[in-house]
Amino acid sequence: MNIKANNPLLKSWITIPKNSDFPIQNLPFGIFSLEDETPRVGVAIGSQIVDLKSLFELGYLEEVPFELADFDAAVLNPMMLRGKEAIRVLRNRISDLLNIENKELQGNPEEALQILVNAEDVEMHLPLYIGDYTDFYSSEQHAYNVGCLFRDPNNALLPNWKHIPVGYHGRSSSIVVSGEPIHRPKGQKRPNPEEPPVFGPSNLLDFELEMGFVTFQGKPLGNSISTSEADEYIFGMCLFNDWSARDIQGWEYVPLGPFLGKNFASHMGAWIVTLDALEPFRVPGPIQKPEVLPYLEYKGDKHIAINLEVAIQPENTTEKVVSNSNYKYMYWNMNQQLAHHSVNGCNINCGDLMASGTISGPEKHEYGSMLEISWKGSKTVQMNDGSERKFINDNDTVIMRGFAQNDTTRIGFGEVSAKVLPAK
Amino acid sequence: MNIKANNPLLKSWITIPKNSDFPIQNLPFGIFSLEDETPRVGVAIGSQIVDLKSLFELGYLEEVPFELADFDAAVLNPMMLRGKEAIRVLRNRISDLLNIENKELQGNPEEALQILVNAEDVEMHLPLYIGDYTDFYSSEQHAYNVGCLFRDPNNALLPNWKHIPVGYHGRSSSIVVSGEPIHRPKGQKRPNPEEPPVFGPSNLLDFELEMGFVTFQGKPLGNSISTSEADEYIFGMCLFNDWSARDIQGWEYVPLGPFLGKNFASHMGAWIVTLDALEPFRVPGPIQKPEVLPYLEYKGDKHIAINLEVAIQPENTTEKVVSNSNYKYMYWNMNQQLAHHSVNGCNINCGDLMASGTISGPEKHEYGSMLEISWKGSKTVQMNDGSERKFINDNDTVIMRGFAQNDTTRIGFGEVSAKVLPAK
Repeated sequence: MNIKANNPLLKSWITIPKNSDFPIQNLPFGIFSLEDETPRVGVAIGSQIVDLKSLFELGYLEEVPFELADFDAAVLNPMMLRGKEAIRVLRNRISDLLNIENKELQGNPEEALQILVNAEDVEMHLPLYIGDYTDFYSSEQHAYNVGCLFRDPNNALLPNWKHIPVGYHGRSSSIVVSGEPIHRPKGQKRPNPEEPPVFGPSNLLDFELEMGFVTFQGKPLGNSISTSEADEYIFGMCLFNDWSARDIQGWEYVPLGPFLGKNFASHMGAWIVTLDALEPFRVPGPIQKPEVLPYLEYKGDKHIAINLEVAIQPENTTEKVVSNSNYKYMYWNMNQQLAHHSVNGCNINCGDLMASGTISGPEKHEYGSMLEISWKGSKTVQMNDGSERKFINDNDTVIMRGFAQNDTTRIGFGEVSAKVLPAK
Repeated sequence: MNIKANNPLLKSWITIPKNSDFPIQNLPFGIFSLEDETPRVGVAIGSQIVDLKSLFELGYLEEVPFELADFDAAVLNPMMLRGKEAIRVLRNRISDLLNIENKELQGNPEEALQILVNAEDVEMHLPLYIGDYTDFYSSEQHAYNVGCLFRDPNNALLPNWKHIPVGYHGRSSSIVVSGEPIHRPKGQKRPNPEEPPVFGPSNLLDFELEMGFVTFQGKPLGNSISTSEADEYIFGMCLFNDWSARDIQGWEYVPLGPFLGKNFASHMGAWIVTLDALEPFRVPGPIQKPEVLPYLEYKGDKHIAINLEVAIQPENTTEKVVSNSNYKYMYWNMNQQLAHHSVNGCNINCGDLMASGTISGPEKHEYGSMLEISWKGSKTVQMNDGSERKFINDNDTVIMRGFAQNDTTRIGFGEVSAKVLPAK
């Protein structure tokens, strides 16, 4: 695929700080607002944001198949409803306008000032109206670790795990954007199996390092999306923290799966990086044995290498990185997840979110949750102030970051960050 | 509570057929359209529907706290956003207009003709935009039967079952309205545990007899709704068929719960009966032992007696009733379900749907799924054409009906009906 805006030789007339997540080759989408202005669609470039509403109003988007209301919107869904090809045209046009060789906007500083906003000055919003949210469980190391911790190391993977991308439905209403603090959840748990359950704040609050992908409008109910069609239905990806209260989850989850142990909150990153921008970072996936059924077979490189890290920042000290993982460690890729999700005719809508499940790599420093890092609370991690963690404490901030990188280009996601306040 | 529109002495000037589900004491809400007209809000009365858009336009709703757009809408959500007290005022006003002692509309046959539509002439639509859908598992007999069939009759109920209203998140995108046919789902299953899984149409397609309840807008994320507050957040109830492909479900559901075995489709009834209209049918629930934690305690009668039936109609023959159950058999009531769902701070939105889980009574003829009726395929049920069923065949139509009844009044839900077409 030749995507014009991905050209590594492109340079912008806007200054891009070194190691920025947002070079001209990225151009991720989000929803931002300035004080006293309504939320609208923006595109990140360096330390700035392109205001697409203003860009449209000033006539710079006359050739693209969009209307003002698509950008003058509190969520990306209206824009996304125009489809993948339209978004591609839009991203190419924005790339042209920011290109150092293009004078249209560059040569009109007064209008450029109206269109460009300092990222530091804005509030970022949840970028999507999320109709349905699905969470997969597609990292082999994570599933293996959980199997070792809760079942039998000799049979750590359940019999279905290598045959189906196991997933479950999550709660969309409680997905919030990076930066919004949450309260430690309360709930029912049974710390001592010999005694009745008790009610109180979760004592085992955990993060899960995940990536999410966002869908375009799918096919009507009753139709399936094949692995080869899947790319056309994926708008882009974001960082995702699937908060998990292990004590609540452990008591409730049999036989129907996680519920209150998860649905108190999940955090997504503010920036959706298009799948187009990530195409240069495709890598082969693992060889899948036993062989998968034909509907899960796929052609080409459908995994993506994305460096991921998680840091914990206790109050009044610096952050400590507790995990370095990579999205390439997924056993099941997005194409397989989407093909599986729809093989029974289940329909997807514009703005649905699907998350990867915890992404753990083979090495211990690559584990994507405190459950694994502390090996179910049997080890501690030292913070920079000398305090120790097995799980997440009150007033800790958990920060996840991610970027794909090759010799020429770094395509980043920004961060997903959230502070945990004490239980209400 | 004294709800004016519930007065059993009220009579309407509109003819109500004997045993109608929709007397003047009911007034359920739905979305309907006539040919060449846009969908809009309607209220069922006898065999007719009151067109609330026309009613508003002709000036009959001047005193109610609504606007035209609330009724000139393809879903009930805008109307519901006005809140419980506003809906109560509206229902009382409609009751007055249909009351035989009120001449306002009755005395103006020309306008009455514009406002009243024959139910037979309309298309009914999915009445809600459903943000999130949750399915509970709150009938003790059903959980016990499933435990006997898949685990151990001596430990049929799992340890958490009497402590928490077990529930899980379902898929909202694939919820459709009564009458829409569905295709038998295809998927991965493992009929022989000694052999690899296979792909194909589900061979064990089942219904689940459930009731759903629909919520008003809740509190912001991080807040809880108590059992005593719950009634104020419930708009009404509907019939619900939680289709289940037992073979797909059986292979996929460990450890994260049902997914493709459920999300190919669920059917809801077209009419939402307000909780207000159901108040006269409150009954005590079972004594809960062991005692529940304080956040699940409740006062007063919070269960509701609703007669339920399921019929199967094979093609070219008459229907056969295969189950008679009752919503009063729930172990956990809606107030407890909502209190549990939000105790961790999970937020609910206007138009969320929560279903009961399969409602099975203690007697065999009261079981609410073919899994239980055929006792996992070990027994057959004879249809009126002599054919036998263990599960649902292609071209069968499954019909569920429900009504609450006392000495004076019958408050019904209509039906939820759907034909199963062969796999695509």
